[in-house]
Amino acid sequence: MKLKEACGVFGIYSFDFDRDIARTVYYALFALQHRGQESAGIAVSNGKSIKCHKGLGLAFEVFKEEDLVKLSGKIAIGHVRYSTTGSNTFANAQPIVVQCIAGELAIAHNGNIVNADEIRYELEEKGVFFQTTTDSEVIAAILSQGYSKSLEQRIKDSFTLLKGAYSLVIMTNDKLIAVRDPNGFRPLCLGKYNNSYVVASESIALDSIGAQFLRDIEPGEILVIDSAGLRSEKLPTTSRKSLCVFEYVYFARPDSVIEGISVYMARYRMGVELAKEYPVEADLVVGVPDSGTVAAIGYSDYSKIPNGLGLIKNRYIARTFIQPSQKMRSLGVKLKLSPLREIVKDRRIVLVDDSIVRGTTMHQIVKMLKDAGAREVHVRISSPPVRYSCYFGIDTPTRKELVASQMSVEEIRKLIEAESLGYLSIEGLVKAVGLNEGQLCLACFNGNYPLDVPKEGRKYLFEKR
Amino acid sequence: MKLKEACGVFGIYSFDFDRDIARTVYYALFALQHRGQESAGIAVSNGKSIKCHKGLGLAFEVFKEEDLVKLSGKIAIGHVRYSTTGSNTFANAQPIVVQCIAGELAIAHNGNIVNADEIRYELEEKGVFFQTTTDSEVIAAILSQGYSKSLEQRIKDSFTLLKGAYSLVIMTNDKLIAVRDPNGFRPLCLGKYNNSYVVASESIALDSIGAQFLRDIEPGEILVIDSAGLRSEKLPTTSRKSLCVFEYVYFARPDSVIEGISVYMARYRMGVELAKEYPVEADLVVGVPDSGTVAAIGYSDYSKIPNGLGLIKNRYIARTFIQPSQKMRSLGVKLKLSPLREIVKDRRIVLVDDSIVRGTTMHQIVKMLKDAGAREVHVRISSPPVRYSCYFGIDTPTRKELVASQMSVEEIRKLIEAESLGYLSIEGLVKAVGLNEGQLCLACFNGNYPLDVPKEGRKYLFEKR
Amino acid sequence: MKLKEACGVFGIYSFDFDRDIARTVYYALFALQHRGQESAGIAVSNGKSIKCHKGLGLAFEVFKEEDLVKLSGKIAIGHVRYSTTGSNTFANAQPIVVQCIAGELAIAHNGNIVNADEIRYELEEKGVFFQTTTDSEVIAAILSQGYSKSLEQRIKDSFTLLKGAYSLVIMTNDKLIAVRDPNGFRPLCLGKYNNSYVVASESIALDSIGAQFLRDIEPGEILVIDSAGLRSEKLPTTSRKSLCVFEYVYFARPDSVIEGISVYMARYRMGVELAKEYPVEADLVVGVPDSGTVAAIGYSDYSKIPNGLGLIKNRYIARTFIQPSQKMRSLGVKLKLSPLREIVKDRRIVLVDDSIVRGTTMHQIVKMLKDAGAREVHVRISSPPVRYSCYFGIDTPTRKELVASQMSVEEIRKLIEAESLGYLSIEGLVKAVGLNEGQLCLACFNGNYPLDVPKEGRKYLFEKR
Amino acid sequence: MKLKEACGVFGIYSFDFDRDIARTVYYALFALQHRGQESAGIAVSNGKSIKCHKGLGLAFEVFKEEDLVKLSGKIAIGHVRYSTTGSNTFANAQPIVVQCIAGELAIAHNGNIVNADEIRYELEEKGVFFQTTTDSEVIAAILSQGYSKSLEQRIKDSFTLLKGAYSLVIMTNDKLIAVRDPNGFRPLCLGKYNNSYVVASESIALDSIGAQFLRDIEPGEILVIDSAGLRSEKLPTTSRKSLCVFEYVYFARPDSVIEGISVYMARYRMGVELAKEYPVEADLVVGVPDSGTVAAIGYSDYSKIPNGLGLIKNRYIARTFIQPSQKMRSLGVKLKLSPLREIVKDRRIVLVDDSIVRGTTMHQIVKMLKDAGAREVHVRISSPPVRYSCYFGIDTPTRKELVASQMSVEEIRKLIEAESLGYLSIEGLVKAVGLNEGQLCLACFNGNYPLDVPKEGRKYLFEKR
Repeated sequence: MKLKEACGVFGIYSFDFDRDIARTVYYALFALQHRGQESAGIAVSNGKSIKCHKGLGLAFEVFKEEDLVKLSGKIAIGHVRYSTTGSNTFANAQPIVVQCIAGELAIAHNGNIVNADEIRYELEEKGVFFQTTTDSEVIAAILSQGYSKSLEQRIKDSFTLLKGAYSLVIMTNDKLIAVRDPNGFRPLCLGKYNNSYVVASESIALDSIGAQFLRDIEPGEILVIDSAGLRSEKLPTTSRKSLCVFEYVYFARPDSVIEGISVYMARYRMGVELAKEYPVEADLVVGVPDSGTVAAIGYSDYSKIPNGLGLIKNRYIARTFIQPSQKMRSLGVKLKLSPLREIVKDRRIVLVDDSIVRGTTMHQIVKMLKDAGAREVHVRISSPPVRYSCYFGIDTPTRKELVASQMSVEEIRKLIEAESLGYLSIEGLVKAVGLNEGQLCLACFNGNYPLDVPKEGRKYLFEKR
Repeated sequence: MKLKEACGVFGIYSFDFDRDIARTVYYALFALQHRGQESAGIAVSNGKSIKCHKGLGLAFEVFKEEDLVKLSGKIAIGHVRYSTTGSNTFANAQPIVVQCIAGELAIAHNGNIVNADEIRYELEEKGVFFQTTTDSEVIAAILSQGYSKSLEQRIKDSFTLLKGAYSLVIMTNDKLIAVRDPNGFRPLCLGKYNNSYVVASESIALDSIGAQFLRDIEPGEILVIDSAGLRSEKLPTTSRKSLCVFEYVYFARPDSVIEGISVYMARYRMGVELAKEYPVEADLVVGVPDSGTVAAIGYSDYSKIPNGLGLIKNRYIARTFIQPSQKMRSLGVKLKLSPLREIVKDRRIVLVDDSIVRGTTMHQIVKMLKDAGAREVHVRISSPPVRYSCYFGIDTPTRKELVASQMSVEEIRKLIEAESLGYLSIEGLVKAVGLNEGQLCLACFNGNYPLDVPKEGRKYLFEKR
Repeated sequence: MKLKEACGVFGIYSFDFDRDIARTVYYALFALQHRGQESAGIAVSNGKSIKCHKGLGLAFEVFKEEDLVKLSGKIAIGHVRYSTTGSNTFANAQPIVVQCIAGELAIAHNGNIVNADEIRYELEEKGVFFQTTTDSEVIAAILSQGYSKSLEQRIKDSFTLLKGAYSLVIMTNDKLIAVRDPNGFRPLCLGKYNNSYVVASESIALDSIGAQFLRDIEPGEILVIDSAGLRSEKLPTTSRKSLCVFEYVYFARPDSVIEGISVYMARYRMGVELAKEYPVEADLVVGVPDSGTVAAIGYSDYSKIPNGLGLIKNRYIARTFIQPSQKMRSLGVKLKLSPLREIVKDRRIVLVDDSIVRGTTMHQIVKMLKDAGAREVHVRISSPPVRYSCYFGIDTPTRKELVASQMSVEEIRKLIEAESLGYLSIEGLVKAVGLNEGQLCLACFNGNYPLDVPKEGRKYLFEKR
Repeated sequence: MKLKEACGVFGIYSFDFDRDIARTVYYALFALQHRGQESAGIAVSNGKSIKCHKGLGLAFEVFKEEDLVKLSGKIAIGHVRYSTTGSNTFANAQPIVVQCIAGELAIAHNGNIVNADEIRYELEEKGVFFQTTTDSEVIAAILSQGYSKSLEQRIKDSFTLLKGAYSLVIMTNDKLIAVRDPNGFRPLCLGKYNNSYVVASESIALDSIGAQFLRDIEPGEILVIDSAGLRSEKLPTTSRKSLCVFEYVYFARPDSVIEGISVYMARYRMGVELAKEYPVEADLVVGVPDSGTVAAIGYSDYSKIPNGLGLIKNRYIARTFIQPSQKMRSLGVKLKLSPLREIVKDRRIVLVDDSIVRGTTMHQIVKMLKDAGAREVHVRISSPPVRYSCYFGIDTPTRKELVASQMSVEEIRKLIEAESLGYLSIEGLVKAVGLNEGQLCLACFNGNYPLDVPKEGRKYLFEKR
């Protein structure tokens, strides 16, 4: 079981009418697919009205040629989603398209609003009603208030209301607006593509469509793109920058660059630091595919222990895969991962992964390697123990379910039946990333939340009430 | 081309938890399917929260066994839809489920709100935003306002705001409310089924599930069903009753009873009156299946001209039927209707149908009969010429497209190439129905709208702005 | 429960390349859809090779625009199927396309081969293998034998082998062949359409595409259509003509003409004869829709008892309709048929239908009418009691399940709780049809099979071995 | 563009009735999915008759829970397919189920019969007809001949008839038979699983369901599993063993073991040999994912040049992915692969892949790396140049399209714009695999076919005639 990213967003503003605009978004979503596999959607404005197509599933499942053909225009936004708030239903798929006093708005949101519940309650008192259980709809609601002000002004005003993580792309019939919350929890970047500007959660989405990376959107920045070109405003803010470090550890694609730092290189250096902190005498480094692959290379390079492909992942796993029956439950992760007997047999293995959430999967992998003949399995984790729930866009279980919140490292080692277990230190991690500690959110490791968070148990507000 | 009914609604309140509640709604929708074939939906409350499943298509296409199984509870409402406002998209399917200050609400609406646009604008000024283009969402919005009042009170208040036709079933987590607008444009009736109360657009929905008909909901009545049983309130109103006469002419199923009057018998008497008003020497009465079938029986019985099945309808036509290519366009209505050569050959035919909208289809049918050898075709229409657009829940084209609005009866006769053409008079129609003229809406015939209506051209407000 | 027809077939030979040839077949299948709703298929030859698209479901479900577009050519055949032998699986859908020593063949078959099992066994001994459980594949196998002879010769030879009912359309890459078995059990007719010849199970398929009826294919006729035009051969045969009388009673569409006799008129005369044979004092004639509709008109016209639409059929029933749960079983046929209370109340009803198979449905309908207030229900059946199973293309149950095979008419009357029950006599039926008794197969009534048939219990040979 | 494997097969014989038997096959097919992604199928015998479910797509797309539930029994076979002969249509999906004189047979085939055309012609002369264009149906036909002999005998006889590659699993209602052609072109192995025996194309299919590997089926072996247990017969044969070396180079999963040799280790040694044969001064070894990954590790280990993840593969690519429009064609492979700029920039890269087919993809990858800043790109291929088409189960293009058949290595180097290009020698490859050269088929490299093959241009016999 891996931690799950909330969402990926993408936006494009073309200075010419573009018949292929939805197709471009489709390819970009495809490059961002790792950020959310539950639903996908594209909204396009032809300058007069907004059309939206969305559905449950991967982008290639949701969109057929005929859907893309119907969506041409000048401005478009797209979204892939893994649910953090709200359940996985059609109604919760994004972009959200609303009609308010100021006209039509489409919104795609990556992040999580901590005080969505309070805001929603206040809006409901005013008579506003809601049709989903997402915090993203609350953002749409806020932006629909105060008709005498411009949309930009309303966005600015919302900064004081909204607590939490929000990288947003917002579209009206004549402009595209990219917004990143003052803490900058989630990444967002700007690029240029033919006669268009594009914004995306990760730079790989720009690369994959052949767009040129320009820069990251800054925390607290409101970037407006319309017929007049680009203009940007950055609110003075007292928040400190707090980019989610897990983007480097696991979420982002290794071929993305965030804040000028290559995700691949950061992950590689985590492996190096890990090898420094937790050296061990062993015969082979094995990365858990694909989450531990890059750190394993770093570990191997520093430790001079050869790196081997000791675990093979079945590439054909899909959401609709039929689960084993009770009787076959022992198949466990075997259907997804298989050990390379010849490589691991009689070897002392350094098994590298990015994190341990509940411990169950890691236990199964260790067992699988030992069943395949591994003499010793030394588990190395390229981030510190995850002890605190995330409120800023990652789907972590409750603290009770986080094994590192309940057990010491030694207890976890026993649980997973490894010969040794080493977690990268916070210092090591920060060093590996290469940003200043003050610029990162490390709350899941140290509980030091950049913003006030609700008490445990009130996390999924809308689900529970 | 036939006029199209907006919608059918159904609601059920069970005093016990009912595992099969969605299934019951499903069968009821099936009996109401003729009232809307574009989308179908069911919302169920288990007492704590509301779940909804809806989609585009006929009920049997939208619901699979597994969908029904997931929907069990105590209260449920259902809806079948043909779009009058809003386009035919998933977002516009009903029931609409909203969360507002007062909790969760699900709404199913049959009718059309004339001033939805104005109300919506005012609500948007308050900060309310919308996600569909339906007037039904406007009703949901109104009911979400004013949190200090009870839902019943808010419904009462809405009567003064809403202008138009609305037969509503509204569900919260603990009650089912049935509402009929003060004019009573659209039918709505109450029944009893096992340990449940049910409300439905037409009595046939009660019959088909084995429920017992109790009574019609009255115009201006608000009927609340909850754990305390039934209670009802009827607002004093200055509106005159104005039940849509077209329910008798064409929309309702012949096996329904509305306001104590059998739809079949009303239709039969229209045929009788038509025979009185427009007798003709002929050999055979032929009803256009299925719209003219019953009136043809009445015409035949009175005129003593035998009734014959001169036109056969293909029962396998479906929405997804592939249309003829340009080259084959001449196939026209032939694929749907075919003449019975042996019956019509050399005969003088009285062709009975319920109405003529554009004239094209009737022209093709007359031609088809003549090609099959009919010597004369005398067209008899069991309602007066449709000269005015409907604003109360029927999808009529603009006045320009209504042939009777542009041409005299004699001109229409020439257009359709019939030997003679007779429309039932308003007096004849009213007499056939058996209600007082003052209780019926006859606006499509005489332009005498029971409520102020927007100027022509502003009909589909939300679509156009 | 109604008896079910096996299949409908259609073929077209165009003298020009026709981009729309599959579309034409599609519309024709649509007109023949009543002859089979389990699977549909179209095979097209472009002169070089045969492409086939088929699937389970109605024609409009099996074919999408894109499927038709891929099928263009000069020759095409189509098939709709209800299974008599073989189970309802994809593999058994038709047309069957085979490659044999003589090249490619596509075959569409309406009927049932009585001795398919014996023939198959002999072919298997020769080393021929089979991939379906249909008798139609056996026909394909026979036509694949004897490579030194022409296809026409092989067809002629097969006449001496095949016992049973077969109306066939056979296509190679350069010709279309229509074959009707020497007994002529199933109808088959020829028409002209633009620059094409067409053959079809029923004339309505010609009408619906605008083709001109030329003549029926004769029993024992082999009609070949190729670039040289039409040529026909009729084998001298000792078989007597034995057209299935049930085509007139129930299967064929009323707007078809078979052997020069209008199906509608035949059905009408059955009603007349029935009124002569079993008059009754009553207030209303009600036909069971749609099977009893036409005979009811005849009964009413002769008896002068008015005809009324006492039962309404729900037109939206479909194969995938979800069945009532155990608890709701009492809904029975109510979902499909509903009585018109106002019409039947306190009336003495003559209820007309075409046949009674097991008696269960008729019992429910009688009960439904009585529950709706009918004072008396007199059942009149427009054909004699079905006492024997059919081996020639109709899906009858075993004799044990045929109520008339187990009970006397009076016992059946009691079973269905009717006041009286009258079946048309064989003489009356023959008279109503208007063909000589010697030209019809009446075996299901009198057990007088035109060909030797297997002993009861060996009916579904392939299924059972 | 990669070479494509024909198929994967699996069979299971359970000594007890097994409700989950189809589910077990499903998981095994899932592990063999890399061997064929066009269609999947499972046939199960319950001891009396064989049921089969198959369709186009990946296993998880073809099978739903409800399909598996319907398939329970004692014996089952499964198949995944990539078409080498026959086109990709439903009709050609396997297993093939036939009824012949000896009863029901289901067949799943991996390989390619060279003389299928000749055999088929002879069978057609006898009157046998065919319904697909696959050589597998020809095998089924052969096994249907000669009813006086046992199935085992008929299989033995077929060895003298069939020329080519065939690893078969054959099922009747009481036995499972595994057959490997005398040359042993395609792998096939035996395992034990609970109270069952299983056979599979690759050992990983056994591992993934938790079965125990017993041994490879030998070339020319006929292994019968029935209630009496295992028995095996191996025909004396003059054929030399000729296992396809490409199973080691590319097709098989690295976690499979074939003929006692780990595919991973063989691939690793190919990298080592390649490093010996074509050393180069460079900064980084990059394997093309996933085909070059393992050899890259070997190359890196031997050369001491660090191995880096220079290319990232998008894991969400699927068959139904919408292709870029003409205008976007330049996106090329970018959507599937992206270079890691930070890793490759200013580096001299050794790019390792398993083979070059047409050269187009390799050219794009080299260009992609250079665009990302690579200073030099040295391409190393872990097998010799593919100069000859395969007739034994691999889908190679015609010789004209094989770049190595038309160009020298230096010309190919120029074409792909690499700084250097080195192909592993045949000797190096054989050494890396570790089998005797005389036991391998190396025909695609040296044209030395173990069996006579048709002349170029007659490869796809059934398609062309």
